[in-house]
Amino acid sequence: NPHLEKMKEDILYHFALGTGTHDFPALFGDVKFVCVGGSPSRMKAFIAYIAEELGLGGPDCDYPNICVGTDRYAMYKVGPVLSVSHGMGIPSISIMLHELIKLLHHAKCSNITIIRIGTSGGIGLEPGSVVITRQSVDATFKPQFEQVILGKTVIRSTNLDEELAKELMQCSQEISQFNTVIGNTMCTLDFYEGQGRLDGAICLYSEEEKLQYLKEAYDSGVRNIEMESSVFAAMCSLSGVKGK
Amino acid sequence: NPHLEKMKEDILYHFALGTGTHDFPALFGDVKFVCVGGSPSRMKAFIAYIAEELGLGGPDCDYPNICVGTDRYAMYKVGPVLSVSHGMGIPSISIMLHELIKLLHHAKCSNITIIRIGTSGGIGLEPGSVVITRQSVDATFKPQFEQVILGKTVIRSTNLDEELAKELMQCSQEISQFNTVIGNTMCTLDFYEGQGRLDGAICLYSEEEKLQYLKEAYDSGVRNIEMESSVFAAMCSLSGVKGK
Repeated sequence: NPHLEKMKEDILYHFALGTGTHDFPALFGDVKFVCVGGSPSRMKAFIAYIAEELGLGGPDCDYPNICVGTDRYAMYKVGPVLSVSHGMGIPSISIMLHELIKLLHHAKCSNITIIRIGTSGGIGLEPGSVVITRQSVDATFKPQFEQVILGKTVIRSTNLDEELAKELMQCSQEISQFNTVIGNTMCTLDFYEGQGRLDGAICLYSEEEKLQYLKEAYDSGVRNIEMESSVFAAMCSLSGVKGK
Repeated sequence: NPHLEKMKEDILYHFALGTGTHDFPALFGDVKFVCVGGSPSRMKAFIAYIAEELGLGGPDCDYPNICVGTDRYAMYKVGPVLSVSHGMGIPSISIMLHELIKLLHHAKCSNITIIRIGTSGGIGLEPGSVVITRQSVDATFKPQFEQVILGKTVIRSTNLDEELAKELMQCSQEISQFNTVIGNTMCTLDFYEGQGRLDGAICLYSEEEKLQYLKEAYDSGVRNIEMESSVFAAMCSLSGVKGK
């Protein structure tokens, strides 16, 4: 974004961080991996797990929330790994990604890998399976994200990094702890009606219509449904960050 | 939703509440007003303010979070008033509203008024002004909400309660503390590119194009921009709850 060069100070409002008040290269310059997920407490548990795995922290360590000045998002860091919560849904993760990408830019980070981890509804898989996303598709199974800019709809590609998918699949096979597949992930704007659930406050379709829709999704290659992958894929691809 | 009658137990996952584990009529039966807003800490501050105004709690009172079993949403209650956070964006508030409407249904509440309060970007107004929403409009200024259900786009109306708008305007005139207008509210799916900001991570338009778009919005009657009003209006209207 060429407009950023003209700004004297950049305030990342929803992180409560700013280039005028925080030294981004000192705080974040060594970051190489960013893991993002919906829930703040899960991202805190994740950084504690990573710290132990990397030998950088024991079970009694505390990991302070870097975004303590706001309750919009939570952010934790251990060595080269940043763990950030993004709330639920495309708009919520999109605000976070805009500010995260600017943070990494101001901190002069390079060769960043971003991975989104989260729960999702599987289709035709046993519960507990892991899906590595090949492509994120919309509710009509097309690999695209519609973004409305100045009132006009712009279509953006939702391809993710293929090499990274293969690497993750290989890791999973080495650990062989989870049933893991590579498949398409459907990203919806709604949890209840948008994903064909029957137990929302409003539901105007039958169980048969629901099952027919999920079958069509499976036949098109969809293996799970969640609510953030499409804008995640589109923004990683546009900003040149390797994402999964 | 006719499917709800067949369920033995209804679990409101994102509230960490369920009809099998919680007595909804006892806990929520007296609720008459629900105020919803994005940030958990702001909704806690709001319930403390309401408690003082209603003479139901002093400055030292603590208000426990009813949804303490999850970090998805926070919920507080004082007398007939419920205060619930909804995060950012249409998908996030939509999950909350599905579970809130079911909660009020299970608790056998009646004559409920729901008000969404929140920050927004004003258009052509002095900072600090209050906008009471007449209609929620989309990014092309149409008073509608597009919901994708089983892969098909359904258009829903976004009218809000007119009487309630007049009552709120009258309250504001009696207090005369804030510059208050009744106007249309534009609801977008994105904070940066969706609202014409120049300071996102990605921005492919000029300042002139941005100003032209905001002028068109103003001319169509839009007085502020936020990210939740359209699905709020559509779901209140569909479920017969008086909303604003």
